[in-house]
Amino acid sequence: MLPILCIVGASNSGKTTHLEKLIPALSRRGYRIGTVKHDVHGFEMDREGKDTWRHRKAGAGTVAISSPSQVASIRQVDAEMGLDELVGRFFWNEDILITEGFKRSHFPKIEVFRKAIEPQPICRSEDNRIALVTDDAVEVDVPVFRFDQVEPLADFIEARYLKDRKAHQVTVLLDGKKLPMKDFVRDFLVGGIIGMLSSLRGWDDPGKLDIQIRLKEK
Amino acid sequence: MLPILCIVGASNSGKTTHLEKLIPALSRRGYRIGTVKHDVHGFEMDREGKDTWRHRKAGAGTVAISSPSQVASIRQVDAEMGLDELVGRFFWNEDILITEGFKRSHFPKIEVFRKAIEPQPICRSEDNRIALVTDDAVEVDVPVFRFDQVEPLADFIEARYLKDRKAHQVTVLLDGKKLPMKDFVRDFLVGGIIGMLSSLRGWDDPGKLDIQIRLKEK
Repeated sequence: MLPILCIVGASNSGKTTHLEKLIPALSRRGYRIGTVKHDVHGFEMDREGKDTWRHRKAGAGTVAISSPSQVASIRQVDAEMGLDELVGRFFWNEDILITEGFKRSHFPKIEVFRKAIEPQPICRSEDNRIALVTDDAVEVDVPVFRFDQVEPLADFIEARYLKDRKAHQVTVLLDGKKLPMKDFVRDFLVGGIIGMLSSLRGWDDPGKLDIQIRLKEK
Repeated sequence: MLPILCIVGASNSGKTTHLEKLIPALSRRGYRIGTVKHDVHGFEMDREGKDTWRHRKAGAGTVAISSPSQVASIRQVDAEMGLDELVGRFFWNEDILITEGFKRSHFPKIEVFRKAIEPQPICRSEDNRIALVTDDAVEVDVPVFRFDQVEPLADFIEARYLKDRKAHQVTVLLDGKKLPMKDFVRDFLVGGIIGMLSSLRGWDDPGKLDIQIRLKEK
Protein backbone atom coordinates (compact mmCIF):
# COMPACT_ATOMS: atom_id res chain seq x y z
CA MET A 1 0.00 0.00 0.00
CA LEU A 2 1.15 3.52 -0.78
CA PRO A 3 2.25 5.86 1.95
CA ILE A 4 -0.50 8.38 2.67
CA LEU A 5 0.18 11.85 4.00
CA CYS A 6 -2.52 14.39 4.86
CA ILE A 7 -2.04 18.14 4.52
CA VAL A 8 -4.38 19.69 7.04
CA GLY A 9 -5.04 23.16 8.39
CA ALA A 10 -7.72 25.76 8.81
CA SER A 11 -9.50 27.12 5.73
CA ASN A 12 -7.35 29.66 3.91
CA SER A 13 -4.22 28.60 5.78
CA GLY A 14 -2.57 27.93 2.41
CA LYS A 15 -2.83 24.13 2.07
CA THR A 16 -3.33 24.11 -1.71
CA THR A 17 -0.68 26.75 -2.30
CA HIS A 18 1.85 24.76 -0.29
CA LEU A 19 0.89 21.55 -2.06
CA GLU A 20 1.56 23.31 -5.36
CA LYS A 21 5.16 23.69 -4.23
CA LEU A 22 5.54 20.32 -2.53
CA ILE A 23 4.23 18.23 -5.45
CA PRO A 24 6.88 19.43 -7.94
CA ALA A 25 9.60 19.12 -5.28
CA LEU A 26 8.74 15.42 -4.88
CA SER A 27 8.11 14.85 -8.61
CA ARG A 28 11.55 16.16 -9.46
CA ARG A 29 12.97 13.38 -7.30
CA GLY A 30 11.27 10.84 -9.53
CA TYR A 31 8.25 9.98 -7.41
CA ARG A 32 4.77 9.69 -8.84
CA ILE A 33 2.36 11.73 -6.81
CA GLY A 34 -1.35 11.23 -6.36
CA THR A 35 -3.58 13.67 -4.52
CA VAL A 36 -7.01 13.49 -2.98
CA LYS A 37 -9.13 16.46 -2.08
CA HIS A 38 -11.70 16.05 0.63
CA ASP A 39 -14.97 17.70 -0.24
CA VAL A 40 -17.83 18.10 2.17
CA HIS A 41 -20.18 20.26 0.16
CA GLY A 42 -20.67 18.12 -2.94
CA PHE A 43 -18.51 19.02 -5.90
CA GLU A 44 -19.57 19.27 -9.53
CA MET A 45 -16.77 17.81 -11.59
CA ASP A 46 -18.74 17.40 -14.78
CA ARG A 47 -20.35 20.09 -16.91
CA GLU A 48 -24.03 20.36 -17.60
CA GLY A 49 -24.98 19.12 -21.04
CA LYS A 50 -21.79 17.10 -21.62
CA ASP A 51 -22.35 13.48 -22.64
CA THR A 52 -20.98 12.09 -19.38
CA TRP A 53 -23.25 14.48 -17.47
CA ARG A 54 -26.22 13.23 -19.51
CA HIS A 55 -25.28 9.60 -18.78
CA ARG A 56 -25.27 10.35 -15.06
CA LYS A 57 -28.56 12.19 -15.17
CA ALA A 58 -30.05 9.18 -16.96
CA GLY A 59 -29.01 6.98 -14.04
CA ALA A 60 -25.53 5.60 -14.71
CA GLY A 61 -23.94 5.04 -11.29
CA THR A 62 -20.43 5.35 -12.64
CA VAL A 63 -19.33 7.20 -15.75
CA ALA A 64 -15.87 7.43 -17.23
CA ILE A 65 -14.36 9.31 -20.10
CA SER A 66 -11.23 8.04 -21.78
CA SER A 67 -8.80 9.72 -24.15
CA PRO A 68 -5.20 8.99 -25.21
CA SER A 69 -3.85 11.37 -22.58
CA GLN A 70 -6.19 11.09 -19.62
CA VAL A 71 -9.04 9.14 -18.14
CA ALA A 72 -11.59 10.41 -15.65
CA SER A 73 -14.36 8.78 -13.70
CA ILE A 74 -17.25 9.94 -11.57
CA ARG A 75 -18.95 7.47 -9.26
CA GLN A 76 -21.98 7.81 -7.03
CA VAL A 77 -21.43 6.41 -3.55
CA ASP A 78 -23.76 5.71 -0.63
CA ALA A 79 -21.17 6.71 1.94
CA GLU A 80 -17.85 8.42 1.82
CA MET A 81 -14.99 6.16 0.74
CA GLY A 82 -12.21 5.70 3.23
CA LEU A 83 -8.68 6.65 2.22
CA ASP A 84 -7.71 2.95 2.17
CA GLU A 85 -10.29 2.25 -0.46
CA LEU A 86 -9.53 5.43 -2.43
CA VAL A 87 -5.91 4.37 -2.61
CA GLY A 88 -6.78 0.83 -3.62
CA ARG A 89 -9.20 1.96 -6.30
CA PHE A 90 -7.65 4.95 -7.94
CA PHE A 91 -3.93 5.07 -7.17
CA TRP A 92 -2.43 1.89 -8.54
CA ASN A 93 0.68 3.43 -10.03
CA GLU A 94 1.73 6.16 -7.61
CA ASP A 95 4.49 6.23 -5.04
CA ILE A 96 2.75 8.42 -2.50
CA LEU A 97 -0.70 9.84 -1.94
CA ILE A 98 -0.99 13.32 -0.49
CA THR A 99 -4.39 14.43 0.65
CA GLU A 100 -5.80 17.85 1.23
CA GLY A 101 -7.97 17.59 4.28
CA PHE A 102 -8.96 14.27 5.93
CA LYS A 103 -7.96 15.65 9.32
CA ARG A 104 -9.99 12.93 11.03
CA SER A 105 -8.19 10.04 9.38
CA HIS A 106 -5.52 8.13 11.29
CA PHE A 107 -2.86 8.80 8.64
CA PRO A 108 0.14 11.02 9.34
CA LYS A 109 -0.46 14.73 8.91
CA ILE A 110 1.41 17.86 8.06
CA GLU A 111 -0.33 20.90 9.40
CA VAL A 112 -0.19 24.26 7.64
CA PHE A 113 -0.61 27.01 10.21
CA ARG A 114 -0.89 30.82 10.11
CA LYS A 115 -1.64 32.83 13.21
CA ALA A 116 -3.41 35.43 11.07
CA ILE A 117 -6.00 32.78 10.15
CA GLU A 118 -6.36 30.74 13.33
CA PRO A 119 -5.05 31.48 16.83
CA GLN A 120 -3.74 27.94 17.43
CA PRO A 121 -2.79 24.90 15.31
CA ILE A 122 -5.83 22.69 14.77
CA CYS A 123 -4.17 19.28 15.30
CA ARG A 124 -4.35 17.74 18.72
CA SER A 125 -1.91 15.30 20.23
CA GLU A 126 -3.88 12.27 19.03
CA ASP A 127 -4.00 13.47 15.43
CA ASN A 128 -0.71 11.89 14.32
CA ARG A 129 0.84 15.15 13.20
CA ILE A 130 4.40 14.63 11.99
CA ALA A 131 5.35 18.18 11.01
CA LEU A 132 4.13 21.77 11.05
CA VAL A 133 4.54 24.32 8.26
CA THR A 134 4.40 27.88 9.55
CA ASP A 135 6.19 31.22 9.59
CA ASP A 136 4.84 32.01 13.03
CA ALA A 137 6.46 31.29 16.36
CA VAL A 138 4.71 28.25 17.86
CA GLU A 139 5.76 25.58 20.32
CA VAL A 140 5.14 22.08 19.00
CA ASP A 141 6.78 18.71 19.51
CA VAL A 142 7.25 17.95 15.80
CA PRO A 143 9.66 19.33 13.17
CA VAL A 144 8.70 22.83 11.95
CA PHE A 145 9.30 24.03 8.40
CA ARG A 146 8.92 27.59 7.16
CA PHE A 147 6.79 28.18 4.09
CA ASP A 148 9.90 28.65 1.95
CA GLN A 149 11.51 25.41 3.24
CA VAL A 150 9.92 23.24 0.60
CA GLU A 151 13.03 21.20 -0.21
CA PRO A 152 13.76 20.38 3.44
CA LEU A 153 10.15 19.29 3.80
CA ALA A 154 10.49 17.09 0.70
CA ASP A 155 13.69 15.61 2.21
CA PHE A 156 11.80 14.85 5.39
CA ILE A 157 8.95 13.13 3.52
CA GLU A 158 11.32 11.22 1.29
CA ALA A 159 13.42 9.92 4.17
CA ARG A 160 10.39 8.92 6.15
CA TYR A 161 8.07 7.42 3.51
CA LEU A 162 9.72 6.95 0.16
CA LYS A 163 13.09 5.35 0.78
CA ASP A 164 13.27 1.58 0.89
CA ARG A 165 9.68 0.69 0.29
CA LYS A 166 9.16 -3.06 0.10
CA ALA A 167 9.30 -4.33 -3.44
CA HIS A 168 6.35 -6.64 -2.84
CA GLN A 169 3.38 -4.53 -2.03
CA VAL A 170 0.06 -6.15 -1.54
CA THR A 171 -3.34 -4.74 -0.79
CA VAL A 172 -6.33 -7.00 -0.26
CA LEU A 173 -9.69 -5.26 -0.17
CA LEU A 174 -12.83 -7.07 1.00
CA ASP A 175 -15.84 -5.07 -0.10
CA GLY A 176 -13.47 -2.14 -0.34
CA LYS A 177 -12.09 -2.55 3.19
CA LYS A 178 -8.46 -3.39 3.64
CA LEU A 179 -7.74 -6.82 5.07
CA PRO A 180 -4.90 -6.58 7.59
CA MET A 181 -2.22 -9.23 7.04
CA LYS A 182 0.96 -10.13 8.82
CA ASP A 183 4.13 -10.31 6.72
CA PHE A 184 4.07 -14.08 6.71
CA VAL A 185 0.51 -14.32 5.45
CA ARG A 186 1.16 -11.64 2.86
CA ASP A 187 4.23 -13.42 1.50
CA PHE A 188 2.35 -16.73 1.51
CA LEU A 189 -0.51 -15.16 -0.44
CA VAL A 190 1.76 -13.51 -2.99
CA GLY A 191 3.73 -16.70 -3.42
CA GLY A 192 0.59 -18.77 -3.83
CA ILE A 193 -0.95 -16.45 -6.39
CA ILE A 194 2.23 -16.10 -8.42
CA GLY A 195 2.61 -19.86 -8.27
CA MET A 196 -0.86 -20.39 -9.68
CA LEU A 197 -0.61 -17.78 -12.42
CA SER A 198 2.98 -17.62 -13.57
CA SER A 199 2.85 -20.75 -15.69
CA LEU A 200 -0.08 -19.43 -17.71
CA ARG A 201 0.29 -18.20 -21.25
CA GLY A 202 0.03 -14.41 -20.98
CA TRP A 203 2.18 -14.08 -17.87
CA ASP A 204 5.14 -12.06 -19.05
CA ASP A 205 7.05 -10.66 -16.10
CA PRO A 206 4.37 -8.17 -15.08
CA GLY A 207 5.09 -5.29 -12.75
CA LYS A 208 1.59 -5.06 -11.36
CA LEU A 209 -1.04 -7.70 -10.71
CA ASP A 210 -4.70 -6.97 -9.99
CA ILE A 211 -7.25 -9.63 -9.15
CA GLN A 212 -10.90 -8.79 -8.77
CA ILE A 213 -13.31 -11.44 -7.62
CA ARG A 214 -17.03 -11.03 -7.23
CA LEU A 215 -17.91 -13.64 -4.64
CA LYS A 216 -21.64 -13.21 -4.69
CA GLU A 217 -24.29 -11.14 -6.39
CA LYS A 218 -25.36 -8.22 -4.29
CA MET B 1 -15.94 -9.48 -15.95
CA LEU B 2 -18.87 -7.26 -16.77
CA PRO B 3 -20.62 -7.50 -20.06
CA ILE B 4 -19.58 -4.59 -22.28
CA LEU B 5 -21.81 -3.15 -24.97
CA CYS B 6 -20.80 -0.35 -27.32
CA ILE B 7 -23.26 2.15 -28.73
CA VAL B 8 -21.78 3.29 -32.02
CA GLY B 9 -22.90 5.42 -34.93
CA ALA B 10 -21.98 8.49 -36.94
CA SER B 11 -21.68 11.85 -35.17
CA ASN B 12 -25.10 13.33 -34.47
CA SER B 13 -26.85 10.04 -35.11
CA GLY B 14 -28.38 10.27 -31.62
CA LYS B 15 -26.18 7.93 -29.56
CA THR B 16 -26.30 9.97 -26.36
CA THR B 17 -30.02 10.69 -26.69
CA HIS B 18 -30.74 7.00 -27.12
CA LEU B 19 -28.51 6.10 -24.20
CA GLU B 20 -30.49 8.55 -22.07
CA LYS B 21 -33.51 6.33 -22.71
CA LEU B 22 -31.78 2.98 -22.52
CA ILE B 23 -30.00 3.61 -19.19
CA PRO B 24 -33.22 4.19 -17.20
CA ALA B 25 -34.93 1.27 -18.97
CA LEU B 26 -32.17 -1.04 -17.68
CA SER B 27 -31.88 0.67 -14.27
CA ARG B 28 -35.58 0.14 -13.64
CA ARG B 29 -34.95 -3.60 -13.98
CA GLY B 30 -32.50 -3.41 -11.09
CA TYR B 31 -29.22 -3.39 -12.97
CA ARG B 32 -26.38 -1.04 -12.11
CA ILE B 33 -25.18 0.70 -15.21
CA GLY B 34 -21.76 2.12 -15.93
CA THR B 35 -20.93 4.16 -19.01
CA VAL B 36 -17.76 5.14 -20.79
CA LYS B 37 -17.45 7.93 -23.29
CA HIS B 38 -14.68 7.73 -25.84
CA ASP B 39 -12.98 11.05 -26.33
CA VAL B 40 -10.44 11.73 -29.03
CA HIS B 41 -9.96 15.45 -28.67
CA GLY B 42 -8.87 15.68 -25.03
CA PHE B 43 -11.57 16.54 -22.56
CA GLU B 44 -11.37 19.02 -19.71
CA MET B 45 -13.23 17.47 -16.80
CA ASP B 46 -11.86 19.72 -14.13
CA ARG B 47 -12.29 23.49 -13.79
CA GLU B 48 -9.48 25.98 -13.87
CA GLY B 49 -8.54 27.25 -10.44
CA LYS B 50 -10.17 24.42 -8.51
CA ASP B 51 -7.93 22.66 -6.00
CA THR B 52 -7.84 19.41 -7.97
CA TRP B 53 -6.96 21.40 -11.09
CA ARG B 54 -4.13 23.08 -9.18
CA HIS B 55 -2.84 19.70 -7.95
CA ARG B 56 -2.71 18.44 -11.52
CA LYS B 57 -0.96 21.55 -12.79
CA ALA B 58 1.62 21.10 -10.04
CA GLY B 59 2.36 17.63 -11.38
CA ALA B 60 0.12 15.12 -9.63
CA GLY B 61 -0.39 12.25 -12.10
CA THR B 62 -3.68 11.22 -10.54
CA VAL B 63 -6.05 13.39 -8.56
CA ALA B 64 -9.26 12.40 -6.86
CA ILE B 65 -11.96 14.27 -5.04
CA SER B 66 -14.14 12.49 -2.53
CA SER B 67 -17.41 13.49 -0.88
CA PRO B 68 -20.14 11.56 0.92
CA SER B 69 -22.16 11.25 -2.30
CA GLN B 70 -19.61 10.90 -5.07
CA VAL B 71 -15.99 10.37 -5.86
CA ALA B 72 -14.17 11.45 -9.00
CA SER B 73 -10.70 10.86 -10.34
CA ILE B 74 -8.61 12.22 -13.18
CA ARG B 75 -5.54 10.33 -14.25
CA GLN B 76 -2.85 11.13 -16.80
CA VAL B 77 -2.04 8.20 -19.09
CA ASP B 78 0.69 7.58 -21.64
CA ALA B 79 -1.60 5.67 -23.95
CA GLU B 80 -5.31 5.15 -24.17
CA MET B 81 -6.63 2.56 -21.73
CA GLY B 82 -8.32 -0.45 -23.27
CA LEU B 83 -11.91 -1.20 -22.32
CA ASP B 84 -10.75 -4.28 -20.39
CA GLU B 85 -8.63 -2.13 -18.15
CA LEU B 86 -11.26 0.60 -17.84
CA VAL B 87 -13.72 -2.00 -16.63
CA GLY B 88 -11.24 -3.52 -14.23
CA ARG B 89 -10.22 -0.18 -12.80
CA PHE B 90 -13.38 1.86 -12.54
CA PHE B 91 -16.41 -0.42 -12.70
CA TRP B 92 -16.17 -2.80 -9.79
CA ASN B 93 -19.78 -2.69 -8.77
CA GLU B 94 -21.76 -2.48 -11.99
CA ASP B 95 -23.73 -5.13 -13.84
CA ILE B 96 -23.07 -3.86 -17.34
CA LEU B 97 -20.88 -1.28 -19.01
CA ILE B 98 -22.29 0.63 -21.94
CA THR B 99 -19.89 2.67 -23.99
CA GLU B 100 -20.47 5.54 -26.31
CA GLY B 101 -18.05 5.07 -29.16
CA PHE B 102 -15.22 2.49 -29.18
CA LYS B 103 -16.28 1.29 -32.61
CA ARG B 104 -12.87 -0.31 -33.14
CA SER B 105 -13.09 -2.51 -30.05
CA HIS B 106 -13.99 -6.18 -30.41
CA PHE B 107 -16.95 -5.87 -28.01
CA PRO B 108 -20.55 -6.28 -29.21
CA LYS B 109 -22.08 -3.16 -30.69
CA ILE B 110 -25.45 -1.56 -31.15
CA GLU B 111 -25.43 0.87 -34.02
CA VAL B 112 -27.60 3.98 -34.06
CA PHE B 113 -28.36 4.91 -37.65
CA ARG B 114 -30.16 7.76 -39.41
CA LYS B 115 -30.16 8.09 -43.18
CA ALA B 116 -30.42 11.88 -42.81
CA ILE B 117 -26.97 11.82 -41.16
CA GLU B 118 -25.09 9.09 -43.00
CA PRO B 119 -26.07 7.25 -46.21
CA GLN B 120 -25.19 3.78 -44.83
CA PRO B 121 -24.65 2.18 -41.41
CA ILE B 122 -21.01 2.51 -40.36
CA CYS B 123 -20.51 -1.01 -38.97
CA ARG B 124 -19.01 -3.62 -41.23
CA SER B 125 -19.53 -7.34 -41.01
CA GLU B 126 -16.44 -7.85 -38.84
CA ASP B 127 -17.51 -5.22 -36.29
CA ASN B 128 -19.55 -7.55 -34.08
CA ARG B 129 -22.76 -5.57 -34.42
CA ILE B 130 -25.60 -7.28 -32.60
CA ALA B 131 -28.46 -4.85 -33.28
CA LEU B 132 -29.37 -1.71 -35.18
CA VAL B 133 -31.49 1.18 -33.91
CA THR B 134 -33.08 3.14 -36.74
CA ASP B 135 -36.35 4.52 -38.09
CA ASP B 136 -35.14 4.15 -41.66
CA ALA B 137 -35.59 1.19 -43.94
CA VAL B 138 -32.33 -0.72 -44.06
CA GLU B 139 -31.39 -4.31 -44.75
CA VAL B 140 -29.20 -5.81 -42.07
CA ASP B 141 -28.68 -9.30 -40.68
CA VAL B 142 -29.21 -8.30 -37.02
CA PRO B 143 -32.34 -7.37 -35.04
CA VAL B 144 -33.60 -3.86 -35.80
CA PHE B 145 -35.26 -1.63 -33.18
CA ARG B 146 -37.04 1.64 -33.85
CA PHE B 147 -36.05 4.67 -31.79
CA ASP B 148 -39.19 4.32 -29.69
CA GLN B 149 -38.60 0.60 -29.04
CA VAL B 150 -36.51 1.19 -25.96
CA GLU B 151 -38.13 -1.51 -23.81
CA PRO B 152 -37.76 -4.21 -26.48
CA LEU B 153 -34.11 -3.21 -26.85
CA ALA B 154 -33.69 -3.46 -23.05
CA ASP B 155 -35.33 -6.93 -23.19
CA PHE B 156 -32.87 -7.95 -25.87
CA ILE B 157 -29.86 -6.73 -23.87
CA GLU B 158 -31.15 -8.29 -20.66
CA ALA B 159 -31.76 -11.68 -22.22
CA ARG B 160 -28.42 -11.70 -23.92
CA TYR B 161 -26.08 -10.27 -21.29
CA LEU B 162 -27.70 -9.88 -17.90
CA LYS B 163 -29.55 -13.11 -17.19
CA ASP B 164 -27.68 -15.91 -15.48
CA ARG B 165 -24.29 -14.33 -15.12
CA LYS B 166 -21.85 -16.57 -13.30
CA ALA B 167 -21.75 -15.89 -9.59
CA HIS B 168 -17.97 -16.19 -9.50
CA GLN B 169 -16.56 -13.46 -11.60
CA VAL B 170 -12.85 -13.03 -11.78
CA THR B 171 -10.67 -10.54 -13.58
CA VAL B 172 -6.90 -10.77 -13.43
CA LEU B 173 -5.02 -7.79 -14.81
CA LEU B 174 -1.28 -7.91 -15.45
CA ASP B 175 0.00 -4.37 -15.87
CA GLY B 176 -3.61 -3.50 -16.68
CA LYS B 177 -3.98 -6.18 -19.38
CA LYS B 178 -6.48 -8.94 -18.83
CA LEU B 179 -5.03 -12.40 -18.37
CA PRO B 180 -7.14 -14.93 -20.25
CA MET B 181 -8.02 -17.98 -18.17
CA LYS B 182 -9.91 -21.16 -18.82
CA ASP B 183 -12.76 -22.01 -16.45
CA PHE B 184 -10.68 -24.64 -14.68
CA VAL B 185 -7.79 -22.28 -14.01
CA ARG B 186 -10.15 -19.55 -12.90
CA ASP B 187 -11.93 -21.82 -10.42
CA PHE B 188 -8.58 -23.14 -9.16
CA LEU B 189 -7.33 -19.58 -8.62
CA VAL B 190 -10.49 -18.46 -6.84
CA GLY B 191 -10.47 -21.56 -4.65
CA GLY B 192 -6.80 -21.11 -3.81
CA ILE B 193 -7.17 -17.45 -2.89
CA ILE B 194 -10.28 -17.98 -0.82
CA GLY B 195 -8.56 -20.90 0.86
CA MET B 196 -5.60 -18.73 1.82
CA LEU B 197 -7.63 -15.76 3.04
CA SER B 198 -10.85 -17.05 4.49
CA SER B 199 -9.38 -18.19 7.79
CA LEU B 200 -7.94 -14.73 8.50
CA ARG B 201 -9.46 -12.41 11.05
CA GLY B 202 -11.22 -9.73 9.02
CA TRP B 203 -12.74 -12.11 6.46
CA ASP B 204 -16.46 -11.76 6.99
CA ASP B 205 -18.38 -13.17 4.06
CA PRO B 206 -17.32 -10.45 1.63
CA GLY B 207 -19.11 -9.89 -1.67
CA LYS B 208 -16.12 -8.51 -3.49
CA LEU B 209 -12.45 -9.26 -3.21
CA ASP B 210 -9.69 -7.09 -4.71
CA ILE B 211 -6.03 -7.97 -4.57
CA GLN B 212 -3.39 -5.61 -5.85
CA ILE B 213 0.21 -6.68 -5.96
CA ARG B 214 3.14 -4.59 -7.06
CA LEU B 215 5.66 -7.17 -8.23
CA LYS B 216 8.50 -4.81 -8.94
CA GLU B 217 9.33 -1.15 -8.83
CA LYS B 218 8.91 0.50 -12.17
